[in-house]
Amino acid sequence: MPETAVAVDLGGTNLRVAAVTEHGEVLHRRSEPTEAASGPTVVAARISAMIEETAAAAGLAPTAPAGVAVPGPVDPRTGVVFFTPNLTGWRNFPLGDVVGRQSQRPVAFGNDGNCAALGEARFGAGVGSGDLIYVALGTGVGGGIISGGRLIEGVGGIGGEIGHVVVALDGPRCTCGSIGCLEAFVAGWAIARDARLVATTVDGAAIRRAAGDREIDASAVAQAAREGDPAAVALLSRAGRALGAAIGAFVNIFNPELVVIGGGIASLGDSLLDHARQALPQHAFPEQRAHVRLESSRLGDDTALYGAAALAFQSISDVEHHRPKT
Amino acid sequence: MPETAVAVDLGGTNLRVAAVTEHGEVLHRRSEPTEAASGPTVVAARISAMIEETAAAAGLAPTAPAGVAVPGPVDPRTGVVFFTPNLTGWRNFPLGDVVGRQSQRPVAFGNDGNCAALGEARFGAGVGSGDLIYVALGTGVGGGIISGGRLIEGVGGIGGEIGHVVVALDGPRCTCGSIGCLEAFVAGWAIARDARLVATTVDGAAIRRAAGDREIDASAVAQAAREGDPAAVALLSRAGRALGAAIGAFVNIFNPELVVIGGGIASLGDSLLDHARQALPQHAFPEQRAHVRLESSRLGDDTALYGAAALAFQSISDVEHHRPKT
Repeated sequence: MPETAVAVDLGGTNLRVAAVTEHGEVLHRRSEPTEAASGPTVVAARISAMIEETAAAAGLAPTAPAGVAVPGPVDPRTGVVFFTPNLTGWRNFPLGDVVGRQSQRPVAFGNDGNCAALGEARFGAGVGSGDLIYVALGTGVGGGIISGGRLIEGVGGIGGEIGHVVVALDGPRCTCGSIGCLEAFVAGWAIARDARLVATTVDGAAIRRAAGDREIDASAVAQAAREGDPAAVALLSRAGRALGAAIGAFVNIFNPELVVIGGGIASLGDSLLDHARQALPQHAFPEQRAHVRLESSRLGDDTALYGAAALAFQSISDVEHHRPKT
Repeated sequence: MPETAVAVDLGGTNLRVAAVTEHGEVLHRRSEPTEAASGPTVVAARISAMIEETAAAAGLAPTAPAGVAVPGPVDPRTGVVFFTPNLTGWRNFPLGDVVGRQSQRPVAFGNDGNCAALGEARFGAGVGSGDLIYVALGTGVGGGIISGGRLIEGVGGIGGEIGHVVVALDGPRCTCGSIGCLEAFVAGWAIARDARLVATTVDGAAIRRAAGDREIDASAVAQAAREGDPAAVALLSRAGRALGAAIGAFVNIFNPELVVIGGGIASLGDSLLDHARQALPQHAFPEQRAHVRLESSRLGDDTALYGAAALAFQSISDVEHHRPKT
């Protein structure tokens, strides 16, 4: 029987748990709404309970490892969650301690972007790659970096914030408070911000039509772009150009063999990624570009879930680094 | 007797070789002009000869390791030098093979920026740090990154090009061909380019005076800035702002404990680095900023030389990775 881990994807909307074998087979999975309003202690207890329920349903030993992908910066050594943009009340919350008291198995904790990079490297588009960057384009922009076979974590375990790198010194303000971040160009909220501005003008007719009765968002821009609307195409082109420039910087810094792009914004259509591909050569050395492939995620919505499993397996072989203090 | 390595700093102007102990003591050193016009084969033979001359002068065993810092991208596994911006005729030159045939000792090869990062981590401002970024501000902008105790090298060994990351999507063209690179704002040539433009106007009087009979360069700007000239201060402020933004991006990506700044431009005065320090908080998360210190290099002109020694020592414990094919 292959080794199996319990994987947890703690999301702002849903809490999803699965038993995942070392070959990437899902033996059992369950999902329930994240009771975010109940606060972190209640959610942490549900995480512990669902880990044990899932392990029991899949017939796993009490020593089978678990991994938890957290939607915010977390100390991988202690499981302290520093904060979570989409879950209120989580500030310096000792998730590792709480789950560690309620579960006897080894439980590893990681930022969801870092987990996603591990997931793509172990089960997805990057199987066998030790030099891979995962870029998650969603409401925000996150991701993770594997260089030389190891996750980039930094001295406090909170590295890998690839959405918050400057691409324009005089660019727009980002939700993080910084100026000109990649996220401030290509996140769902950034595309929506630009689209709402355009929609106040005559050029925004197609975008307004695509949005219909709903508020204008990135998917309305994508729909208008697919219909050939020049304003929508220009908006996605601008976002794609910023994305390509940032990926160019990552390529020069990390000399990776693979950049994997995932998240809801990435699936909006070709306009964005095509423009990113066009911009990349203007921002990276030919030598570095020759090594790298740009690919789409193969794990879709399950990237962080598979990543939590990869984190759990990694924690077995790297206990000192990843096992939470209990 | 402490372990000792032979360190080589191959520069565009001088070829410098030293015997350096594991404690950073220099037992013997020599320097001669790099006979760049003679071509790579002649220079490689001088490197081999100077390694043996220095080893003999310092009384080292034939097994004492050597390290060579190369002024351009080099494959650390093979010692192939891809190209060198400041030495003509070096394109895909097999320096590792040539030196390997002429020397029996283990010889490791590294980009000078990467070596400098190793040097600062082992002998300089970052002793004991496993999460350190070295930024070299000179005619160009280079550097190296140590994350989790290891050099960032990438799949082809040519990562760490931190001077060539976008900071301004619509910024100036860089000498590398890309648009809006950090180097295109803060390198010596970039500051000189901006200063020569200003010098054509009435605002450039103080810079013209500072340059005297010489061509206007970054040191003339620094001198005028020290005298309080507003145009010179504005030029250095712009460069410093770009530097601070890029360092902010590195801080978010790598969560380092230390950023070390070295190179001739860094020593021009406080205007540049003060503005970089002011810009940093606008481009990095508070959590990451809380971990990091910005410091000046403690190794000065010898950063890459000490780094070559550090590379040699590292190659002993990491032979598979760093020893050239012979």
